[in-house]
Order: sequence, then structure tokens, then C-alpha cells
Amino acid sequence: MEHQPRNPSFAAEIKQSFAKQKIMALIGAELTRVEPGVVEITLPYRAELCQQHGYLHAGIVTTIADSACGYAAYSLMPEDSEVLSVEFKVNLLRPAKGELFVAVAEVIKSGKTLTVVRADVYGLDQSGRREVIATMLGTMICLS
Amino acid sequence: MEHQPRNPSFAAEIKQSFAKQKIMALIGAELTRVEPGVVEITLPYRAELCQQHGYLHAGIVTTIADSACGYAAYSLMPEDSEVLSVEFKVNLLRPAKGELFVAVAEVIKSGKTLTVVRADVYGLDQSGRREVIATMLGTMICLS
Amino acid sequence: MEHQPRNPSFAAEIKQSFAKQKIMALIGAELTRVEPGVVEITLPYRAELCQQHGYLHAGIVTTIADSACGYAAYSLMPEDSEVLSVEFKVNLLRPAKGELFVAVAEVIKSGKTLTVVRADVYGLDQSGRREVIATMLGTMICLS
Amino acid sequence: MEHQPRNPSFAAEIKQSFAKQKIMALIGAELTRVEPGVVEITLPYRAELCQQHGYLHAGIVTTIADSACGYAAYSLMPEDSEVLSVEFKVNLLRPAKGELFVAVAEVIKSGKTLTVVRADVYGLDQSGRREVIATMLGTMICLS
Repeated sequence: MEHQPRNPSFAAEIKQSFAKQKIMALIGAELTRVEPGVVEITLPYRAELCQQHGYLHAGIVTTIADSACGYAAYSLMPEDSEVLSVEFKVNLLRPAKGELFVAVAEVIKSGKTLTVVRADVYGLDQSGRREVIATMLGTMICLS
Repeated sequence: MEHQPRNPSFAAEIKQSFAKQKIMALIGAELTRVEPGVVEITLPYRAELCQQHGYLHAGIVTTIADSACGYAAYSLMPEDSEVLSVEFKVNLLRPAKGELFVAVAEVIKSGKTLTVVRADVYGLDQSGRREVIATMLGTMICLS
Repeated sequence: MEHQPRNPSFAAEIKQSFAKQKIMALIGAELTRVEPGVVEITLPYRAELCQQHGYLHAGIVTTIADSACGYAAYSLMPEDSEVLSVEFKVNLLRPAKGELFVAVAEVIKSGKTLTVVRADVYGLDQSGRREVIATMLGTMICLS
Repeated sequence: MEHQPRNPSFAAEIKQSFAKQKIMALIGAELTRVEPGVVEITLPYRAELCQQHGYLHAGIVTTIADSACGYAAYSLMPEDSEVLSVEFKVNLLRPAKGELFVAVAEVIKSGKTLTVVRADVYGLDQSGRREVIATMLGTMICLS
């Protein structure tokens, strides 16, 4: 899908905004890709992010997927906008195992008020082999 | 709704399992209510859990709601079960403001394999006044 | 929850709009309750609405739940608004058996642009005993 | 994605089952593609399937998407299985306009008990130009 940004400085603004999301520093997530309509966030495994079986907690999977979706939506919004999550649904497809987790979000439909975004979250093992562990389908709103 | 537990030691097991969810310690969440079909998790506000506007990140709202839903489901499962999240949907109803956040989960339908759970997440201000900030509808699976 | 309507003629407008939803006539659904923030739609069982096992098709369960949610949202919108469904999630809790099906929708959060609504769909047997067969959580948008 | 069917007669069984879904005859839907993990259902526009603005009702959009998802899941299940919808979420991306509507479902993750499926629903105009009008993300269960 071709995505046309309306805000020429979207990438710089997303990086600034991401730096203000203190939760990203707490869990150790990094913004690893910012393109029109597509944003990727990467999170190395840490035991303290896990649930009782040692897998990444579904809420942390959601945390990186939601931020990736929000910024993917934001990348197509006009200048001086703000983005908020309206709702999302997450299907947990496999136990969240991996050395590294990557959430890749892409805009499905960009509207004036609402943007619908999908994200897949992958777990990568030491050899770099990746498997989808979760998928999100969400709605973001543009406030301006 | 009346909920009949099948595992007499469900409350002790939930407390043990919660203590193993390292993410709960990282964010500072506590298990504050465990009853048949109903579980509550409480999280004090901390700036490092927030997104760019200073509100609790939707992923952290989800983290406490998902654990509350999982344990609410687990409270009605037979002994020697394990619970995993299949999927959930979250509607963010208001900006996640508050001194304290409380996720209250209640089982809607408990089946042999799947359990459907709803959770409301409240933000409480300094005076103790509470507002719903999010609601989750999710599906949990019993592995045994 | 107390709901304050802003459009004094909401009930008449909902009845008019419902009468224009030709799909409601096709399946035999009726509008059986219209109050501020709460709308109910009733559908008698008919074999031609069913899936392969003789249960009401999940899409028809959704059809009455979605219209009930849309009108519940509309009941709190200002005059000269239009309502559209943004998204919904449905959990199918039990096989959709019954002589009669009733979808009861209630607004959870009414905002200027978006309204979040929940609906439960019940199946009633010949003796009038009812069981929840599905629950919807959805988002509606106000166009004006 | 490569999908390996375990039931050699899946296509014939899906056609038989579809023929028993009386709701498909009522609305005029046809099964137009059955492959391992992929199922397509086509529905011509009819005014009596519409809501108050003359668009296809979201519940009917859901009806064809849900059946397509269920059969896509079923195509990968073992012999003598039955499939039921556990839950689905639908985002309505554009007004459901068109001469013809096509729901294309594809399995994302096929498990022993649960299968996760995505469907896109397209509206086609008279020239055959198509636009996505809705997307579904759902969970199906295998009963055997």
C-alpha cells in the first residue's frame, strides 16, 4: 500500500514523541523504523517483563504494538495533530518466546478523524528466526 | 452472578502465580482482591509508566486488565490447570489519569476450554473519586 | 447509569430510522425498547436465519446487536446527527438457540465524536427462560 | 502462507455445509472459492440487505465474513471436526457500497483447538473496481 504523509516532519516528531514515552525506556523498547504508514518498535527480552511461565506478558506485547500502531497512524496525520488510541484487539497466536520482539504496524485505512492500523508482533530467536506471536487490529483518533 | 470454584485452593494458587509475574513487580502492581470469578489488581501512578502526554500507557492499562482477566478465569478452573490469554479487546474510554488505577475483572461465561471475561479499569483521583478509563472483553483458555 | 438525551425527539427518529433498515424487515426484527442510552431489538427464530447446525447465524446475532448499539448511541447524540458503526467485537458465548432473540444495548461512554456501547444478546426458550448467547463491545461515530 | 489440509475431502464438505446455511440462501450469498486456508464468499447487492442509508448492513458484512472465516479454519481441520465461531472483531473501513461484495478469509494461525483467521470484505462497483470496506479478525474453535 502507498501511504502519502501530509506532515513533512512526521519522522522527527515521532522520534521526539517516542522519547517522551517513559514506559518505553522502562521496558527497554526502541523505535527502529519510521516510514509513512509503517512504524516498527523493537524490544529485547528481559525476565522482568514476563508473566508466570517466563513468556513476555501479553500487556507488554500490547504496549509495543499499541505504540507502533499509534505512530504509524500519526505518520499520516496533518501537522499539529495528536493521536490517541480508541481501541484495539489483540490475538495471542503463540507463547511470546524470543530474544528480541519486534512490533511492525501498518496503516490499513487513514481517515480524517479515525485511522485503522494493524500490527504483527514477532519473536526472534538467537539465530534471528522469527515467528508471529501476536496480531493487533486497532483504531486511532486524530485530535487537532 | 454466582461463580462456583472447582479448585479449593484457587486463591492461594493465584497469589503464588501473581508473585511469579515479574512484570507486576516492575510496574508496582498488587493483587488486591481474589474471589471466585472476580479478581482485582491495583497500580499506583508512576511517571515512568506513561506515554507522551503523561497518561498511563494503554499497554500498561492492558497489562493489569489482562492479568486480572486471566486470574478471574483461573479462579473457576479445575486443579492443575494453566491459563493463557487467547485474545482481548480494549476500549480506551477516557485519558488514563489518576493517582491509582484499579482493574476489576469478572467472568462472564466459564466453559470447559474457554472462559470469557470482562474487566473495567478505573482511575482514582486523590479524593478517591473513580472513573472508568477502559474496558476489556477477552477470552482465556484452560490448558490441563 | 443515567443517560441524558440531547435530542428531544430521539425516540421518534430512531423508530423512523429503524423502519428504513430494510434488513430488519427481511429477518423479521422489531424495535422493542427505546430509552436514553438503551435500545432493545427482538427477533423471532426462523430456520432461514440459521447456520449449518440450526443455530442463529453469528452474523444475524451481530445484525441485531449492531443496530441496537447504533441506536443506543444515537439516542444520546444531538439533533441532525447521523450514526455509523466504527467497529465491534462479538464473543459468542453459547450456541444461539431459542424461540426468540433479544439484543439489549447500553451506552458505556458517550463522547462528542465517539460512543462506546455494549450489547448482550439473549436466547429465550418457550417458557421465557433466557440465557446470554453473545456479547458485543463496539464503537459508534457521530457524523453531523 | 502455505496451508496443509489434513482432511482430503475438505472442499466437498465445506460446499455441503455451506448449502445447509440457510441464511446464505436468504441473502443470496455464494461460495466462490475454497482452498486450503482460504475461503471466499460473494454477495450481490440487494436493497433489502441494507441499513437506513442504503449501505449493506454491517451485520450482513459480518455474516459473509464470519462464514468465510469459519470455513477457512475448517479447511485445515481434521476429518469429523466441527467448527464454531468463538469471537470476532470487525472494523468498518468505508460505507458498504457496491454492486457485489466479496469476503476473502485466510487462516493466520491454525492450532489444534483454536484457529485465528482474518477476512477482508471488498465492495466492487459496476466496472469491477474494488475497495476494502471492512476487515475481520476472529477466532474459531475445532470441536471433534
